[in-house]
Amino acid sequence: MKLKTFGDYEVRVRESFARQPTMKTLGVTLEHVAPGEVDLGFAFDTRLTQQHGFIHAGIMTTVLDTAAGLAAFSLMPEEAGVLTIELKASLMRPAKGARFLCKGRVLKPGRTIVFAEAVGYADDVEIARMSGSMMVVEGREGVKG
Amino acid sequence: MKLKTFGDYEVRVRESFARQPTMKTLGVTLEHVAPGEVDLGFAFDTRLTQQHGFIHAGIMTTVLDTAAGLAAFSLMPEEAGVLTIELKASLMRPAKGARFLCKGRVLKPGRTIVFAEAVGYADDVEIARMSGSMMVVEGREGVKG
Amino acid sequence: MKLKTFGDYEVRVRESFARQPTMKTLGVTLEHVAPGEVDLGFAFDTRLTQQHGFIHAGIMTTVLDTAAGLAAFSLMPEEAGVLTIELKASLMRPAKGARFLCKGRVLKPGRTIVFAEAVGYADDVEIARMSGSMMVVEGREGVKG
Amino acid sequence: MKLKTFGDYEVRVRESFARQPTMKTLGVTLEHVAPGEVDLGFAFDTRLTQQHGFIHAGIMTTVLDTAAGLAAFSLMPEEAGVLTIELKASLMRPAKGARFLCKGRVLKPGRTIVFAEAVGYADDVEIARMSGSMMVVEGREGVKG
Repeated sequence: MKLKTFGDYEVRVRESFARQPTMKTLGVTLEHVAPGEVDLGFAFDTRLTQQHGFIHAGIMTTVLDTAAGLAAFSLMPEEAGVLTIELKASLMRPAKGARFLCKGRVLKPGRTIVFAEAVGYADDVEIARMSGSMMVVEGREGVKG
Repeated sequence: MKLKTFGDYEVRVRESFARQPTMKTLGVTLEHVAPGEVDLGFAFDTRLTQQHGFIHAGIMTTVLDTAAGLAAFSLMPEEAGVLTIELKASLMRPAKGARFLCKGRVLKPGRTIVFAEAVGYADDVEIARMSGSMMVVEGREGVKG
Repeated sequence: MKLKTFGDYEVRVRESFARQPTMKTLGVTLEHVAPGEVDLGFAFDTRLTQQHGFIHAGIMTTVLDTAAGLAAFSLMPEEAGVLTIELKASLMRPAKGARFLCKGRVLKPGRTIVFAEAVGYADDVEIARMSGSMMVVEGREGVKG
Repeated sequence: MKLKTFGDYEVRVRESFARQPTMKTLGVTLEHVAPGEVDLGFAFDTRLTQQHGFIHAGIMTTVLDTAAGLAAFSLMPEEAGVLTIELKASLMRPAKGARFLCKGRVLKPGRTIVFAEAVGYADDVEIARMSGSMMVVEGREGVKG
């Protein structure tokens, strides 16, 4: 798949990630950026667990969504913002482990909607998959990045 | 729909909620418990925002998932644990507002899978919907509540 | 929710339905049209079953999707076409019964994306739920209705 | 991933497929069976189109669901039946073409739930993706295969 980028897409992806306080709250780091691809990682943290001591399904989904959203954003025009309009996640195994990786990638670029997915790993074991529809928002005040 | 509960379901729901560190990290409070129904609330917090200043879609999904999961859990046997195996969310409006409410309810009880949904509100405006499949886990060490 | 329609929306919904050969192949009838609401019905038919004699989950999903899509279409501008870009279905009970009803309704209108859902019944028992994102397509040749 | 099969899994997959009248109604053929993998194909047919002349999103989803379900079934015990409890589909491009292929595969086997996905192609172009949760049903009368 030929993936078109606009201007310095990598700088924009890194800036968008850095401007998300949630990523700091969850201790997420940006591991990889390429056209249509973004990987995010985070370490096990008791503050992010549910009642059995696993990472909360929603927290896992949050990082998967951000990886997929940034992968989509990497292909968007310079003035655009990205918003997730829907996501669907399969949580195949409990999220237990020391280190978690969420690998996002674009399934299909588009002018209005970018389809993206992300696969989640716990210590190299695949534990979750998410796919979502990411909207390209242009000309809406306050929605850039 | 006639909804069967087991023993003191409300105590178990409140205990399960209290044992989820993620809920404390996000500042979520338990607002309502009834058979097959759980409402959760939280206030706007800059730490939970994305790059445009809205509550992160994943954080919204986390609270929706917890409300739906606890609604499912309210109908489960006394020794059971609950795990979300999949969730699907529609994020219809950006999550902006002062106060957020996530109302979870059971769509169909079951011995193995409970189907539940949750509707999210920002200052009384409906902004998101999620549905999920919640597994009834019995006899697995460490998975209770 | 105040739902705006354009011109003779009901005529356009009925025409769009009538132009879908799949609906004829499955024996589906249009039962109700209102702003943001469309109900479709069909009778049990052995040709539409899976290996246990239930209506195939995909066929149920097809009618749910059409009900939701037409509900969305009922609120679209006169020259627009509707396309489902994603759908998510929970199949809570096997589809057995004599008569099936799929009630579609809009959750949130929009200029580009309309969020809609549909609930499926078998002889008045709720058996399935679907939600989807419906795109408003304008100015694309061949995509009208 | 090591995938365990039971007895003559291929015969059971072929029998289950052959017992689904919906597959005959839609003109679907079984193209490939391996442990955790099933491919299904079908030709363009006007009877299966929607209002713009594309294959109906629901029909595409029906074949994706069947491919994923049979892939899951290929790993199930000999007396089990398979039921889709939920599915989520992204319809990335309109389904236009002469020939359609749906490639199903298991993402994670399990005793109660098998996670599977299917990718849809129109004349070798990827147009759709679906993932679902497939239940292993044992000891329920009438639900085998």
